[in-house]
Amino acid sequence: MKIPEILLIETLHKPGSLARVLTVIGECGLVIEDLDAVRRNEERTVWEITLEMDAEADRDLIGKIAALPNARVLGRSDRVFNRHVGGKIQMVSRSPIASLQELRDIYTPGVARVCLAIQDKPDLAREYTNIDRTVAIVTNGTAILGLGDIGPVAGLPVMEGKAALMAKFGGLSGIPILIADKDPRRLADIIASVAPSFGAIQLEDIAAPACFEVEAELRARLDRPVLHDDQHGTAVVTLAALLSAATRLGLDIRKSSIGIIGLGAAGIGIARMLIVFGARVVLGTDISEQAMLRLESMGGKRADLDGVMKKADVVIAVTGRRGLITPDMVRKGQHIFALSNPDPEIEPVDALEGGAAFAADGKSINNVLVFPGLFRGAMEARARAFTDDMLLAAARAISAAAPKGELVPQPLDRAVHDAVARAVFKAAGGKG
Amino acid sequence: MKIPEILLIETLHKPGSLARVLTVIGECGLVIEDLDAVRRNEERTVWEITLEMDAEADRDLIGKIAALPNARVLGRSDRVFNRHVGGKIQMVSRSPIASLQELRDIYTPGVARVCLAIQDKPDLAREYTNIDRTVAIVTNGTAILGLGDIGPVAGLPVMEGKAALMAKFGGLSGIPILIADKDPRRLADIIASVAPSFGAIQLEDIAAPACFEVEAELRARLDRPVLHDDQHGTAVVTLAALLSAATRLGLDIRKSSIGIIGLGAAGIGIARMLIVFGARVVLGTDISEQAMLRLESMGGKRADLDGVMKKADVVIAVTGRRGLITPDMVRKGQHIFALSNPDPEIEPVDALEGGAAFAADGKSINNVLVFPGLFRGAMEARARAFTDDMLLAAARAISAAAPKGELVPQPLDRAVHDAVARAVFKAAGGKG
Repeated sequence: MKIPEILLIETLHKPGSLARVLTVIGECGLVIEDLDAVRRNEERTVWEITLEMDAEADRDLIGKIAALPNARVLGRSDRVFNRHVGGKIQMVSRSPIASLQELRDIYTPGVARVCLAIQDKPDLAREYTNIDRTVAIVTNGTAILGLGDIGPVAGLPVMEGKAALMAKFGGLSGIPILIADKDPRRLADIIASVAPSFGAIQLEDIAAPACFEVEAELRARLDRPVLHDDQHGTAVVTLAALLSAATRLGLDIRKSSIGIIGLGAAGIGIARMLIVFGARVVLGTDISEQAMLRLESMGGKRADLDGVMKKADVVIAVTGRRGLITPDMVRKGQHIFALSNPDPEIEPVDALEGGAAFAADGKSINNVLVFPGLFRGAMEARARAFTDDMLLAAARAISAAAPKGELVPQPLDRAVHDAVARAVFKAAGGKG
Repeated sequence: MKIPEILLIETLHKPGSLARVLTVIGECGLVIEDLDAVRRNEERTVWEITLEMDAEADRDLIGKIAALPNARVLGRSDRVFNRHVGGKIQMVSRSPIASLQELRDIYTPGVARVCLAIQDKPDLAREYTNIDRTVAIVTNGTAILGLGDIGPVAGLPVMEGKAALMAKFGGLSGIPILIADKDPRRLADIIASVAPSFGAIQLEDIAAPACFEVEAELRARLDRPVLHDDQHGTAVVTLAALLSAATRLGLDIRKSSIGIIGLGAAGIGIARMLIVFGARVVLGTDISEQAMLRLESMGGKRADLDGVMKKADVVIAVTGRRGLITPDMVRKGQHIFALSNPDPEIEPVDALEGGAAFAADGKSINNVLVFPGLFRGAMEARARAFTDDMLLAAARAISAAAPKGELVPQPLDRAVHDAVARAVFKAAGGKG
């Protein structure tokens, strides 16, 4: 997996000195993600250049830049780490607690009155506590991003990131819950035991196939929304992108043959979502027989990689395997979504060269577009579970918010998350 | 249990009209906790009057006020409930998330770098996540305040109150965790299962004797600080008050005979703390034989209520039973701490009339003085457990911060919590 690397490069103020640095980077096969002037005096500028690169490319590149006449490698930037110092989330008091009487109202003795009211009418907890905006973000650390089983504590920065995004775009209180257990039954038991603390549960980065059992078990046992984001969050944003592409290309998703390469959490979630949407032909392939059986049990059809590439009008690849699809495998007129991040199964430009009518990678197809609004809408509607209608409504809202020429909108636009929340709220039967 | 009641009373602007209202309240045996003018026009003022009262006193009082010439009962104020609307805590993002690059640094793809660093060196989680400032506030709802077993969800307002105070006075992220289970072994198992999520664990309002087993089990199993606040938080602030009183009265706690009435979580915690402090004679009494055995196992001596009142130089009552001690039971020159809230076992004024040399109730002896600084100090020192030295240091710091003539300081003073944190940090061997 490629991971961003941020170099600090100093250039002299001579014409062409920055250009030469960027040329060298390009010659090493690396794409520039971001570039910032972080310090500048009369003679020199220090640039923070963000790249996606491997360790090998690294050594090569540093040597080549060092050899340039007007540039110097100062080292690596700590920007990503600096943005994590002290963590990314924080619990705060909504009360100022500025007077003794306020303390006595929110804590003892006043709080007893509120406790008794909730004991009498449990539903009042929704009104007088934060529970209806509180989402557990639960992981066992077995499938953190594309990094695999790195353990729950190493996965905490991802959970805190989700919580920060939930706070920022949904006004929700995301609570990372780390559980060092891989057994799906025990995992479900532990989560169910602490579930009274939360208004909803987001399962996160739990590896397949345990993730399926844990989610099914919790959905059956709990009276509050449960969602495995890697399945359904990804499925919703993928469907949103597909809807946008279909409109633009005059494609009928329901009548097209759709092939899914990779039937892990994301692939199974996407297959399920497409079948729910009404797609009649959903093919899929995976190296795991269990995954193939799971696809068939949902109404999909098994195939091999070759079969998918030959038969499908629309190909969705979610394998995490860079370069799995070569240009010669692409069928003329095919629509290719190579969604693995950060390295797609085939670069869109190569897919188009191979004859595809349309090609996209997963860079912008980010489930951050989904979960803040999806949870907020469901919880505001006091839904007892996520329904397919709610997921479809979220996908349609995201697609509708995409600017002309884009498959999905930018995730920093708060209005998008509000639109998703509204659509989900309505689909959940929320009133008001 | 008395619970605050807030009446809205309108008086005409005539001399003596408010005085008459207050006189009637006094005649009903009620003490005024707070009084605010909330609306005023040329003719009338609306007063919000906070009282501690029972339902019976209530009916009586309302009728009497209604009969006054220049006053009118408008009803009850919703102030306490209003201060709970939407809950008292909220998770926020510490990152502004204002640019796409920032999103890519704190979430995918940048966050992967931080995850890998923590996988390599797990201790880096303390630096790059919020875990070292995150405290689980765990309850099963079996002993919420003086209300008893009202269930964990009805207890949530108390847990949110604790979390709000932790945030405000300790800069900590308190996370309410509600578990609907009364079996101490299962409770400990569940808490241990989610413990990797938190830097420390506060057990809260779990009834005796389950609380003892749960705490002991977790202290043995976990490598992070665990504290049952009802035992040790209460014990620390009680010892602080005792230290202040001892200084003022020239009392030697170690040589005095100390009697504890009521050996629930608080009583047992206080007995243990006093024995740790060095008190040589600690008597105790309770209706439960199991509680008496527990006291004896710690080095205390069993007695009955009469025996305690006859033998003890210092009496500490934590039974939750109003009026349990009558003035004729008080021995001349005795020091009485009747700490049950909001209704003491004997009113200080009655104890003094009965011959006590000193008497106090529990109104100001609040464990909010303890837990924010205690947890912060321990976590900043990266302590793996709470030690007796840390608890004693907290008690001494609280006593030292008490203004002249007071047993303990005001809890709204942030400097007090900072002093507690510093003392605990030092006692935990923290450096810097």
